[in-house]
Amino acid sequence: MTSTISMGQYLFKRVAELGIEHIFGVPGDFNLTLLDELFKVHELDWLGVCNELNGAYAADGYARIKGVPGVLVTTYAVGELSAMNGVAGAYAEHAGMIHVVGMPGRAVQEARLMLHHTMEPGMDQTVYVGMAEPIRKTHTILTDEKTMAQEIDRVIEAGVKSKLPVYIYVPMDVVGIPLDASRLEKPLNTKVVNSNSQMEDEVVQSTLELIRKSSKPSILADVLTIRHGGRELARRLANATQFPTYSTPLSKGVFDETDSKYNGVYNGEVSFPGCADSLESSDLVLNVGFLLSDSNTGGFTRKIPNGNLVLLGHDYCQIHDKKFDGIHFLPVLKRIVEEIEKDLKQYGLPKSDTRAKVETPVLSTSTSGPITQSYIWQRIGRFLLPNDIILTESGTAQFGLTDAVFPASTQLITQTFWSSIGYTVGACLGALVASKEAQKQKQKRSSSSTSTSDSPSSRVILIVGDGSLQMTVQEIGSYIRFNFTPIIFVINNDGYAIERAIHGPGMGYNDISMLWDHQAMLGFLGAREGTGIKGRSFACRDVEELERVLGEEEFAGAGCIQMCEIFIAKLDYPWRLSAQIAVSRQKMAQAMALQA
Amino acid sequence: MTSTISMGQYLFKRVAELGIEHIFGVPGDFNLTLLDELFKVHELDWLGVCNELNGAYAADGYARIKGVPGVLVTTYAVGELSAMNGVAGAYAEHAGMIHVVGMPGRAVQEARLMLHHTMEPGMDQTVYVGMAEPIRKTHTILTDEKTMAQEIDRVIEAGVKSKLPVYIYVPMDVVGIPLDASRLEKPLNTKVVNSNSQMEDEVVQSTLELIRKSSKPSILADVLTIRHGGRELARRLANATQFPTYSTPLSKGVFDETDSKYNGVYNGEVSFPGCADSLESSDLVLNVGFLLSDSNTGGFTRKIPNGNLVLLGHDYCQIHDKKFDGIHFLPVLKRIVEEIEKDLKQYGLPKSDTRAKVETPVLSTSTSGPITQSYIWQRIGRFLLPNDIILTESGTAQFGLTDAVFPASTQLITQTFWSSIGYTVGACLGALVASKEAQKQKQKRSSSSTSTSDSPSSRVILIVGDGSLQMTVQEIGSYIRFNFTPIIFVINNDGYAIERAIHGPGMGYNDISMLWDHQAMLGFLGAREGTGIKGRSFACRDVEELERVLGEEEFAGAGCIQMCEIFIAKLDYPWRLSAQIAVSRQKMAQAMALQA
Repeated sequence: MTSTISMGQYLFKRVAELGIEHIFGVPGDFNLTLLDELFKVHELDWLGVCNELNGAYAADGYARIKGVPGVLVTTYAVGELSAMNGVAGAYAEHAGMIHVVGMPGRAVQEARLMLHHTMEPGMDQTVYVGMAEPIRKTHTILTDEKTMAQEIDRVIEAGVKSKLPVYIYVPMDVVGIPLDASRLEKPLNTKVVNSNSQMEDEVVQSTLELIRKSSKPSILADVLTIRHGGRELARRLANATQFPTYSTPLSKGVFDETDSKYNGVYNGEVSFPGCADSLESSDLVLNVGFLLSDSNTGGFTRKIPNGNLVLLGHDYCQIHDKKFDGIHFLPVLKRIVEEIEKDLKQYGLPKSDTRAKVETPVLSTSTSGPITQSYIWQRIGRFLLPNDIILTESGTAQFGLTDAVFPASTQLITQTFWSSIGYTVGACLGALVASKEAQKQKQKRSSSSTSTSDSPSSRVILIVGDGSLQMTVQEIGSYIRFNFTPIIFVINNDGYAIERAIHGPGMGYNDISMLWDHQAMLGFLGAREGTGIKGRSFACRDVEELERVLGEEEFAGAGCIQMCEIFIAKLDYPWRLSAQIAVSRQKMAQAMALQA
Repeated sequence: MTSTISMGQYLFKRVAELGIEHIFGVPGDFNLTLLDELFKVHELDWLGVCNELNGAYAADGYARIKGVPGVLVTTYAVGELSAMNGVAGAYAEHAGMIHVVGMPGRAVQEARLMLHHTMEPGMDQTVYVGMAEPIRKTHTILTDEKTMAQEIDRVIEAGVKSKLPVYIYVPMDVVGIPLDASRLEKPLNTKVVNSNSQMEDEVVQSTLELIRKSSKPSILADVLTIRHGGRELARRLANATQFPTYSTPLSKGVFDETDSKYNGVYNGEVSFPGCADSLESSDLVLNVGFLLSDSNTGGFTRKIPNGNLVLLGHDYCQIHDKKFDGIHFLPVLKRIVEEIEKDLKQYGLPKSDTRAKVETPVLSTSTSGPITQSYIWQRIGRFLLPNDIILTESGTAQFGLTDAVFPASTQLITQTFWSSIGYTVGACLGALVASKEAQKQKQKRSSSSTSTSDSPSSRVILIVGDGSLQMTVQEIGSYIRFNFTPIIFVINNDGYAIERAIHGPGMGYNDISMLWDHQAMLGFLGAREGTGIKGRSFACRDVEELERVLGEEEFAGAGCIQMCEIFIAKLDYPWRLSAQIAVSRQKMAQAMALQA
């Protein structure tokens, strides 16, 4: 006699197997019975969010810290469509997501009833499934009882391996269908393996050989290194080789920035003085997990000759001019690191590279007066503590914080490629949840080893502009509802500053409502006398006021939710934003001229 | 020498030609130069909204009052995808929308540069264009200078005629291209005409003949009557014929509900006592602008035999069993009304129909104690004034307000078919804008006629539940920013009541944050001392408190923005919601059994 498990519980047990403890979403009549099954899986908790776009952002933020896809549950049509922009962002930036969508029952679909959430008589009710096709790796509609379990497994495995969103569509009549429970005894296969081992060998051996021969090697680890779980390997490679290291705008924090070998953020022509020269003078650049978008390459101004370049990517590797399609960097990097760690000398390590460390210039020494873009970001950098998770919204915060120097283990969440404003407010909820799960795990481990020392907890710090905040503000209420205590910096600079920098600085379309009382925000959303939830809010109009707040022990301790509003002049932009725009404009003009 | 006009201005001049005075949207780097052109067209004003989904809702709400599509401008990828759910709703419910999307320049698209807002290297940059295909009538990508003007005209005309969303994609390099300005001298052709005049004749003559022969005729005007501009014709038909009239949940307000011939909301088995019997006993039902979705037909429980039925729809008409494909009701209805008005006697009018008026039962006579669902909706009905625009959110408000009796000219906005919660908060902004435009027009007319009488202004009243409010709350800040003074009722009943009624009344997934301080909302968003904008907030926990507020002259006067929070028990539902759920469940079980 085989024991059975409901389809819904099977799905969520597989989710729990990934180490996931929280699911984000919004209920709707086509997913309610599915949520009943979720509530029966004790490893998982439900986090209801205010709307589906925010939920997608939260799942994305969760994935970036957790290292496995976030799970989002939405309802048919209205829910799944609202989430689309958030899912697409997780696709573009390889955050990954398992998007579970409740839909009408199979017979109702077959009958094409004109239910609410459909659009016209006799409509094919799977029409929305088709709309999401470009923003996912794969999907399944669970209609066939015989293949449901294997389809769930296939789709989740694809999502974990690819770090791209996947969709599981659940007709509401199938959630209780009994599936063979014994299948759960065999774990999911989520390990990234290159099927062409000969090709993998060649990449590994050739790279090792180039390392051996090089005299001025560098490691440039980009964001997909982090997204695909290669951050620790990249750090081990840096430690073993003692090569100079560089990050990109999107991967900032991938290396220990306090390390003497760390040379800063390489972003083509939009880099700090000396940084591009240093990297570009290498005779070997190991470029891992690259994402070569406009804002991550200084507007396509990287200058690394192919003859000096090893690209180790998620869907191909390339050594000089030879391309290895389908080879994933992760197994490659692991073998390279292990080889080198075994025998440094064989690879000529350490190298006698005489390149000087690229020092980060100090942009401002302000101690009083107006808060400027040149002052604020490096100052916030100095406010950071080891293990902090920091989110910077698309716009001035994102470009600005690139100037800061991070403590050793800082994790940055920012969306420089997809660049959807409002993203960080949702993503911050996900980061808070993932960080809490990680801490719980640490505590479990430390209590089981009878250690009494507390592991350092991660502060979660959100920096968002006033315009972006207005996109997704309600989700701050979820931080409060679920007892999280992030530090929120709101940059109040009178509208969409990034748009002003790009075009129409004085035009009305770049304005927003300036009537919001940010000081009242936490109270409105739940942190106030009467609810028993403490919140603290600050307004800083000059450097003195900000220094007072940043220097305060209670503020830095992050014991309750806190909001610090920072006033910056409307037309003040970070230098990187202005430089990026200038370069992009020039490069695009060139591209268009070439085209014409 | 021909005079020219930039592509951008040409587009917006065509928009202005429809009588539109305001455009909704969010700026983004791919639409900024297009917005420059918009700002040069003095007939139009830009209304920046907090996010794109809210913007789509606003454009939808605007269209429902204005009678022409609302215009939404978004930016490439992040913006257009965020709006999808709102556009789909405008599709399902025939609100119409002209969605203008700024996108990368043509040469950049051609080069497939890996710009921000794309998703992967070498991506076809029109991929998002394909995603929106199911939620629009037609679209154009303005790449070819020779056809741009005619493409703009074609797409706008299709949008106006069909009342379905249309998309105009504008590569950023084309906004300044000079087009022939003389083309604007020929107005757009937006008139709905049936190309098959013979078929139209047959529908008109057959219907007139059935009217002549009938002894118990009825008019059942559904929501597409309103959406396609037939409300006044339907009212003229009712006046001329003196037939009993019926609306549906979605079309409530289509007729003068104070008229002695109005018999209420026909919704199959989910109707007030006597209503369905009255309608179903007709020997002729003129069913105009029908939309036969589950919640608009009492869960598919209409009982009107084909032999008594004339369907006058937007894409077909049907007389008994004979279907006339492609015949639009609007020209048909116009001819029928004009024929009848010319000669009542020829059609046996007035009829000696002895059917009694269906009286609306009074559900509650509460004058004290807790506020119940049975009390609140008819009470709000009595609060309404002629010309009010009222929006009811999907959920208890939407089902509940169906019980109210409206003054003569009330306009209702509700989304019973698409049913996306949060919709009304955005739609209310659109309704406010359209109402303001209408009043300005009236004032212009009255001042030009040297009349001194003020035309009655429309109050705009929003009723939204606490859960739905959390979806889209930020847009209330736009009401304040743009000096609107709606009356907002917030139903505080501890979560998603409509979901609780459907499934899992006590389950945690139907909970929301109960920590929001609704009394602080208007202040947070801008209406407070210090901004010079007055706002008033009330909390009503029992009937006495609510009666005091509703009876107050200042509250009813709507001179400033006001919010009235109404506390209702968590598990109290309107009878229509419970009945609808019971019937739908039964009917769907039957459908599934038939299927099996």
